[in-house]
Amino acid sequence: MPASLASKRALRLSLIPFLFVSALAARGADSGETLARQGASGAPPCVTCHGTDGRGNAAGGFPSLAGLSADYQAKQLHDFASGKRANPIMAPIAKALSDEQIQAVAEYYAGLDAGSGQTDQQSSDKAAALPGRDWVVNGHWQANQPACVACHGDGARGVGNHFPALAGQHAGYLEAQLKAWQSGQRKNDAGGLMAAVANAMTEQQIKEVAAYLAALPTTGEIPEHARPDPAPRVADALNNYFQPPLLEDLPDNEFGASVRRGADIFRHTSTDAEAGRYVGNSQSCVNCHMNNGRQANAAPMWAAWGQYPAWRGKNQKVNTMAERLQGCFTYSQNAQASEAGQAPAADSQVIVDLMSFMFWQSKSTPTGEALPGRGYPELDKPAQPFSPERGAGLYAEHCALCHGDDGQGTALAKRRYQFPPLWGDQAFNWGAGMHRVNTAAAFIQANMPLGKPGSLSVQQAWDLAAFITSQPRPQDPRFKGDLDATIKDFHGNRAMDYYGKTVNGYHLGAPGTLEQWRKERTTGR
Amino acid sequence: MPASLASKRALRLSLIPFLFVSALAARGADSGETLARQGASGAPPCVTCHGTDGRGNAAGGFPSLAGLSADYQAKQLHDFASGKRANPIMAPIAKALSDEQIQAVAEYYAGLDAGSGQTDQQSSDKAAALPGRDWVVNGHWQANQPACVACHGDGARGVGNHFPALAGQHAGYLEAQLKAWQSGQRKNDAGGLMAAVANAMTEQQIKEVAAYLAALPTTGEIPEHARPDPAPRVADALNNYFQPPLLEDLPDNEFGASVRRGADIFRHTSTDAEAGRYVGNSQSCVNCHMNNGRQANAAPMWAAWGQYPAWRGKNQKVNTMAERLQGCFTYSQNAQASEAGQAPAADSQVIVDLMSFMFWQSKSTPTGEALPGRGYPELDKPAQPFSPERGAGLYAEHCALCHGDDGQGTALAKRRYQFPPLWGDQAFNWGAGMHRVNTAAAFIQANMPLGKPGSLSVQQAWDLAAFITSQPRPQDPRFKGDLDATIKDFHGNRAMDYYGKTVNGYHLGAPGTLEQWRKERTTGR
Repeated sequence: MPASLASKRALRLSLIPFLFVSALAARGADSGETLARQGASGAPPCVTCHGTDGRGNAAGGFPSLAGLSADYQAKQLHDFASGKRANPIMAPIAKALSDEQIQAVAEYYAGLDAGSGQTDQQSSDKAAALPGRDWVVNGHWQANQPACVACHGDGARGVGNHFPALAGQHAGYLEAQLKAWQSGQRKNDAGGLMAAVANAMTEQQIKEVAAYLAALPTTGEIPEHARPDPAPRVADALNNYFQPPLLEDLPDNEFGASVRRGADIFRHTSTDAEAGRYVGNSQSCVNCHMNNGRQANAAPMWAAWGQYPAWRGKNQKVNTMAERLQGCFTYSQNAQASEAGQAPAADSQVIVDLMSFMFWQSKSTPTGEALPGRGYPELDKPAQPFSPERGAGLYAEHCALCHGDDGQGTALAKRRYQFPPLWGDQAFNWGAGMHRVNTAAAFIQANMPLGKPGSLSVQQAWDLAAFITSQPRPQDPRFKGDLDATIKDFHGNRAMDYYGKTVNGYHLGAPGTLEQWRKERTTGR
Repeated sequence: MPASLASKRALRLSLIPFLFVSALAARGADSGETLARQGASGAPPCVTCHGTDGRGNAAGGFPSLAGLSADYQAKQLHDFASGKRANPIMAPIAKALSDEQIQAVAEYYAGLDAGSGQTDQQSSDKAAALPGRDWVVNGHWQANQPACVACHGDGARGVGNHFPALAGQHAGYLEAQLKAWQSGQRKNDAGGLMAAVANAMTEQQIKEVAAYLAALPTTGEIPEHARPDPAPRVADALNNYFQPPLLEDLPDNEFGASVRRGADIFRHTSTDAEAGRYVGNSQSCVNCHMNNGRQANAAPMWAAWGQYPAWRGKNQKVNTMAERLQGCFTYSQNAQASEAGQAPAADSQVIVDLMSFMFWQSKSTPTGEALPGRGYPELDKPAQPFSPERGAGLYAEHCALCHGDDGQGTALAKRRYQFPPLWGDQAFNWGAGMHRVNTAAAFIQANMPLGKPGSLSVQQAWDLAAFITSQPRPQDPRFKGDLDATIKDFHGNRAMDYYGKTVNGYHLGAPGTLEQWRKERTTGR
């Protein structure tokens, strides 16, 4: 469907509520429930269209609001009022509400039971077979599009205030919104992320994705089929890159079980029952290795597998793959602060399973050869010297939505993050490769923001990297008490490394600096 | 040169000594020296042709005898006498000597200083560049021919009584002998091994090999160039198989150093300063993986590398390559009887270096794919059930020369063997793959005797395997005190396994059986 036609249909759907405009309640300090049931001056009762249970009306195109994040709903109402979100029905209603009324009614709907989009195993099984599942749970990485659940959370039940629950929402509404994002009729998100998603979709894919999301239960156990596959599809369209095998190629035997365990560890390292014991922050492998380690130019595992054993300056020895993986735990996952206090042993089940996962997806790659798509593509030098100050502004604009204003990510539970922390206690330490400005810049330009890789300019990527890598973070585990010695031995590339430098009042890497940061976070600076 | 011409030249050279026939000494209990200097009745003095220093005469084609194994010389004299070694000059001389005289003169020459074929670094350097070096030290595996030094020992200085020293021997004599082996004029070796070698050679190659051997020093330090390369050439002619990279492709850096260490460990595992601590018998990796782990159909490392991690019934878990290598130490190298008492750790330098060696030679092999030439080719079933009794006869005929009448190999020093023991304390244990009749038969048919792979019939290979695998050897490390339980858990393929069976009075694998064997070796049965 062309964008203009889509937007017309969205408009037509949104005109219907006018038929139901009725008695208005007095504007004032009414409770959310009163506002919803009786309306306010200039605002008809919400229940007219969104129902007394808040579940909306599929036929009318009215979305379910029950259980949706209050802040998200409030933002939408403000956007309707300001015109940031264009909607001829909701605009006058939102304008008629005070800030307090908006907050009250949003909180009222947030508190309603979202109910369940499906109540029995049979309907869940049916949903599992829907063609839209793959995009929703695995993403569409051949167009660099992450899974819906990558932002909207497990089971698409929403994350924080920016990513509303999609599960159980009416398919027609979801479809209309995707088309509105696609056409540009709707654009009230941050960074144009939804436009990027919707633009990658055909009309058929929109229909399919909407149907699957609508079929997902809004409460109760998240069904297995709503969880990402351990080996998500990669890249039919990325013809220049290696195509790792698909899940259906994985044998159903002991080895296959090891691969699946490895894939799970890869995705949820910090909260894995066993692997998590070796993670001293809240990082998982997938944070740096997109699409569960399968995406070209995002340090894919299939390009790394055939590169070891290799000598590494990092620890001044030849490393096997097991030792290389231990390095990830030691540095990127700051094992020294973990329960175990160190990386898992080279022959531990954790390392074996991670290796099985890597090995399996590397099937047929040529041993010892550098594959296109490996690592992060080396970035051109910036036109101007990179600047943490410029980076700060860019961060607020492009990154804070997911990684937080304070760089502390979006947490779902203790050590479980939808979006990872980038500095502070829960981030990678000063020994991780990502602490180098050039590595971070290359990663950012090729992979960030999620769903819009390559959208930042080279200069922006460098500036962002400089901002992020000049923040306090956990000590380099190779530090033995002498900062200068650690710099000399392990941080020789001074041009790309803030370790040991003073930025924004923090003597980075010096003893006490992370404590200073922690204290200032609590007390303010 | 055609064989007929070669044999004529050998004959012409051997006629010369007749010119020097002189006074004969009395036949009797003369000392070796007296016999050599004065001759005996019907035998001219040896010194006439072989010189007072025993170093022969290059121009005359008379070989150097100084320092040659006495038993080897005695055998040659007996063979001259019996006609097994045809030589019109030596035949009447040898016939004129009693058994005692033969022994005495042989011992006399064995005791003479072999001198040195080259005395300074310059001549050694020159030898290093000779084209014959590669065959002598690395072999010519594209024709399945092992290195000369594989049988004739380090620096070609001879091994035991069957493999004479070749270093420093006159090039013309060596050349004449190779041509005589080639033409069949000489054939007094065991199993036709030298004919196999010589038949694989062109006239040019014979010349080159002889020239290099002649240039090798007979005493003092063995020069570096006379030692096998860590990554010997494999297989220009083996077009169906993977071609591992050559030594000149190995980078001269820390990684290259690790590869070289791994190659050394591979070749001399039991005596390696570090790896040897984990070897409880006298076995090295190269014993089962021919041509330093690079030969197709001899379980080459380049075909094994891409097969792990994989689930193994042996230890009921997914094994990484490090764990697979630990398995070799545990079983084939009987680590439980070693100084360390166990296999080296997965992240030990020994395992890392072995993995570097494997990885490097696997360059460009497709990960996870089964390559032609991997393992040992599966052998057809034998026409008759395999028989240890028939195997015993075949063993004496085809194997005992190198592996000893008693299966205890040919030792050069403690735990250092030119040819490995096949049973008893110094052999692989009951957990090693080689203890299975089918595995041993497949190995034997594809690889034995050295230099003549494929020469035994399928039935012979099975019978030999049955004989060898039905001998006492060290306990399976998985044995925890209950033979039946160990059989049940780990020796299920009863048709291919003598473990737990009684053969020749030995209850194989039962406690005390190896001790019984040890005692009977000392006291006789």
